[in-house]
Amino acid sequence: MSLIEALNWRYATKKMNGQAVPQEKVDQILEAARLAPSSSGLQPFKVIVITDPALKQELLPHSFAQSQIVDASHVLVFAAWDNYTEERIDEVFNRTNAERGVPAEATADYVARLKSIYLPREAEVNFEHAARQAYISFGTAIAEAALLKVDATPMEGFDNAKYDEILKLSEQGLKSVTVLPLGYRDEANDWLAGLKKVRSSKENFIIEL
Amino acid sequence: MSLIEALNWRYATKKMNGQAVPQEKVDQILEAARLAPSSSGLQPFKVIVITDPALKQELLPHSFAQSQIVDASHVLVFAAWDNYTEERIDEVFNRTNAERGVPAEATADYVARLKSIYLPREAEVNFEHAARQAYISFGTAIAEAALLKVDATPMEGFDNAKYDEILKLSEQGLKSVTVLPLGYRDEANDWLAGLKKVRSSKENFIIEL
Repeated sequence: MSLIEALNWRYATKKMNGQAVPQEKVDQILEAARLAPSSSGLQPFKVIVITDPALKQELLPHSFAQSQIVDASHVLVFAAWDNYTEERIDEVFNRTNAERGVPAEATADYVARLKSIYLPREAEVNFEHAARQAYISFGTAIAEAALLKVDATPMEGFDNAKYDEILKLSEQGLKSVTVLPLGYRDEANDWLAGLKKVRSSKENFIIEL
Repeated sequence: MSLIEALNWRYATKKMNGQAVPQEKVDQILEAARLAPSSSGLQPFKVIVITDPALKQELLPHSFAQSQIVDASHVLVFAAWDNYTEERIDEVFNRTNAERGVPAEATADYVARLKSIYLPREAEVNFEHAARQAYISFGTAIAEAALLKVDATPMEGFDNAKYDEILKLSEQGLKSVTVLPLGYRDEANDWLAGLKKVRSSKENFIIEL
């Protein structure tokens, strides 16, 4: 199946049937998320994978009671760094240089420039930038899920602060950004399953110059 | 090629060889971008496709002189709505309901709730939300390009205000967010081509709960 066929097949599943997604497929979705590009390769986010039924139940009331939170076998939460810090930037470049076998001097100027941009900025501005990077990965995970015929529901509608508290994200310098329950559609009971996918027309979506 | 293989194959190409990407492949990349999901299906962004050499040349100095801007055959600019407005929201739901053959009442409550959230918010907050949606599409376009073995350079490093001015985006209620030049790597002259792709380890990237 091509990605375009997969994107036409997928939809924001509103009702899942409780069937579990095989771990192998979840691993592939996470691997796609991990391989997604990010600004300067910083990957300023993590993915929390929730399978514990009690934890999913605890999140449900803070997710506008969307049943996918409990009917999905795996709930992915994309959580971005709450700020860019010197330590975080250094960790990435030290690791990258080590894996590439190049000396620290190779990236010293670039890293200094990056720090001169990020470190003086307010945490909120840096978080917003980090969140955007998480969205690239989020989009990549959605694409991979569709290619594997795994249903998913891209979600922004949840109580971020409550998620951060329940998942203890603040203590790890993270803030929840998006949620992606993974499972299988309950076609007979999903009001959205039978409705046409509608998108902006090509003529309206694309401007050629 | 699987998406994971494609993501491992791709990299942020620093030097392109000037070879043109066939229009058919560009169309598939744009189609993937168009099919990407967005919050409430609003698709609050457009993609500008630049092939005019003079225009690419004009953008070059406002792109930190990154040569991909002129060496790419097609430069995609993702530009988000500068704000959510009543007209824009109504246009999407009127069109969606018409295409689905459902009456306006079917979405009336949902649309009213959406407007009660978006319309009182500051334009900057709404733009930030719209920009995040553009990033999902941006990630999807990057994935499709890689699957088609088309090289691409995800870029945030450009002068957004200058792009908006040159591409006349403000007049259309749009603000540039990201740039994606499409072309083919010049492997011999690209310092990044031979370097190992480095990502956060699975253990560090994923938190299981």
